Amino acid sequence: MTDIATPTVLLNWPVAKANIDRMVDKARRHGLRLRPHLKTAQCLEIARYFESKGVGQFTCSSFSMARYFAEGGIKDITVAFPVNLREAEAINSLASQISLNVLVVNAESLAWLKKDLRHPLGVFVKIDVGTHRTGLLPEDEIGIEACLREMESHDLLTFKGFLAHAGHSYAARSSEEILKVHRESTAILRMLKSKYLSRFPSLEVSTGDTPTCSVADEGWEGIDEIRPGNFVFYDLMQVAIGSCRMENVAVALACPVVALHPDRHEAIVYGGGIHLSKDRMQWQGTEIFGLPVELSDSGWNLPEPGNYVRSLSQEHGVLHCTPAFFEKLKIGGLVGILPVHSCMMVDIAGHYLLTTGEQWGKL
Amino acid sequence: MTDIATPTVLLNWPVAKANIDRMVDKARRHGLRLRPHLKTAQCLEIARYFESKGVGQFTCSSFSMARYFAEGGIKDITVAFPVNLREAEAINSLASQISLNVLVVNAESLAWLKKDLRHPLGVFVKIDVGTHRTGLLPEDEIGIEACLREMESHDLLTFKGFLAHAGHSYAARSSEEILKVHRESTAILRMLKSKYLSRFPSLEVSTGDTPTCSVADEGWEGIDEIRPGNFVFYDLMQVAIGSCRMENVAVALACPVVALHPDRHEAIVYGGGIHLSKDRMQWQGTEIFGLPVELSDSGWNLPEPGNYVRSLSQEHGVLHCTPAFFEKLKIGGLVGILPVHSCMMVDIAGHYLLTTGEQWGKL
Repeated sequence: MTDIATPTVLLNWPVAKANIDRMVDKARRHGLRLRPHLKTAQCLEIARYFESKGVGQFTCSSFSMARYFAEGGIKDITVAFPVNLREAEAINSLASQISLNVLVVNAESLAWLKKDLRHPLGVFVKIDVGTHRTGLLPEDEIGIEACLREMESHDLLTFKGFLAHAGHSYAARSSEEILKVHRESTAILRMLKSKYLSRFPSLEVSTGDTPTCSVADEGWEGIDEIRPGNFVFYDLMQVAIGSCRMENVAVALACPVVALHPDRHEAIVYGGGIHLSKDRMQWQGTEIFGLPVELSDSGWNLPEPGNYVRSLSQEHGVLHCTPAFFEKLKIGGLVGILPVHSCMMVDIAGHYLLTTGEQWGKL
Repeated sequence: MTDIATPTVLLNWPVAKANIDRMVDKARRHGLRLRPHLKTAQCLEIARYFESKGVGQFTCSSFSMARYFAEGGIKDITVAFPVNLREAEAINSLASQISLNVLVVNAESLAWLKKDLRHPLGVFVKIDVGTHRTGLLPEDEIGIEACLREMESHDLLTFKGFLAHAGHSYAARSSEEILKVHRESTAILRMLKSKYLSRFPSLEVSTGDTPTCSVADEGWEGIDEIRPGNFVFYDLMQVAIGSCRMENVAVALACPVVALHPDRHEAIVYGGGIHLSKDRMQWQGTEIFGLPVELSDSGWNLPEPGNYVRSLSQEHGVLHCTPAFFEKLKIGGLVGILPVHSCMMVDIAGHYLLTTGEQWGKL
């Protein structure tokens, strides 16, 4: 850590490993296939740890991400983003190398896929279970039927089942609210499964956002697969939702302190919007862009109340501090920042620095 | 444009060139040195266009950015970020190659610079002219004097003058408010200049945020240098502030349309927080993450009222559309998105696609 010169993502691997182990155990306990989403970690070492735990099927959010993992030896990937008709080349290229599943939200995309496809491809129909971002509504029998028909008549396309992302769990702020989303979204998937199973005996239903997968310890009957991703690292948003405790957050941005303003107990760090992302949230009544933490040999201490990242510009972070926390900062020293949204912070980073000093590459 | 498969930053170079030409002319008219900030464009081709207009001194926000431009042949750079004591190597390495200026906000940093410096370095003292992000307060005679003394006694350090960034102009929403910030911040710099000029006859004062540099056409007496950057591209925030017109915005993100939801006139595009950044703003009473525009052969049309980017997740953008605009979208087609903050969008991108089809690399 003494070598850190610029904003650097620290990975507390023992914490991340424990997050992974818990989710692997939970999936096993409930007879669920864990197909973790790699959009958070974007790291081959972490995919390989999953493999060492018997998890060999993964989720990605883009074809460039899927290509990175396929080149690293991953053999089974679902790209959980509505299929983009402009990426025919990427789809064909990847489908020739690995077991590839894509997502569709309309029959038009399938009509195109049929036309240009040269390799076998699994297809999930994306269902809107209440998030209202995208997907077919569960009651949209005509839309679903149109998708299914496109697949029944094609050699290379295999209908794999229905896929949902209960992203409205991110609006929850208690276990009860998370469990309500869980019950409703899994009920929709169970309904669809029972409706179409006789016609497609191998159909599966797949769900999985970090809040419901972290919190729900029942109600998984009939669900085949979960695809959480953020749980590997968690973040302040997940703490606020109730998915995890502060101790489970596994990444922080190490930032050089460049200025101290004792008159207002504010510190300026090298670490801005291009490092943390501009994701923000309400935290105990204040809008924050992260929480500063004291770094330690084994990682970082828990945040102390009253300190927060007040604002971010391109390269600057402004920390609002209590007098006690401010006293600990010194120009030329480092401070950690726990991110509002770990996926976004990690996406921008070039590598991880483990708290042991090792460096891991990433996409 | 027909080859675009994934979210791509489009650069309307004739518009950007006109933005540059106007600022070059204005600086010349007022006897100001234009030292444009390259943190927005991050592109050698654009730096070279500035050079063709007689502008050869630049501003960067990091040493990695300065290194990119130095390797491209740029010989004079101010890194306008409070000097980071952990980057001694980068400072020395760059100072051995080019004319390098750094920024200090306290005497401690200078004491360190003196210790480790092996090459000549120019130093600006950063003044807080009202933004209250960082910098010494203009009335902090003791703090300023401590900085000046550190420099007077060192061979390699040269005090260049006082530097300000009137970032509070970003809170303005009219020319009057921008001009008020301009008058107040330049008055502070003039006061400091007259106070210290006899002791440091070559001292200069440098300011320059895009709003004041775009709008103010008087009140530049006594100012030596301006350092705006965003004006090369502008963005929706600058339109809202009043720095430019919508026609002056020179970059847009071209996004594949992947899903249409006619029931709510919403379109899902491939283009999310990792492409546009999570910067948001109020636009005619609504919180937006960008404005969708129809692409054309020569670039894009102006936004039509009632359309906006409602939300962003990692890879998804959700467009809220009027029925008329929605009708024009088709799955597999492209739509443009004007960014809230061009600097952040461009920072994440790997290259520019010019509306002429040419591709330009960037940092």
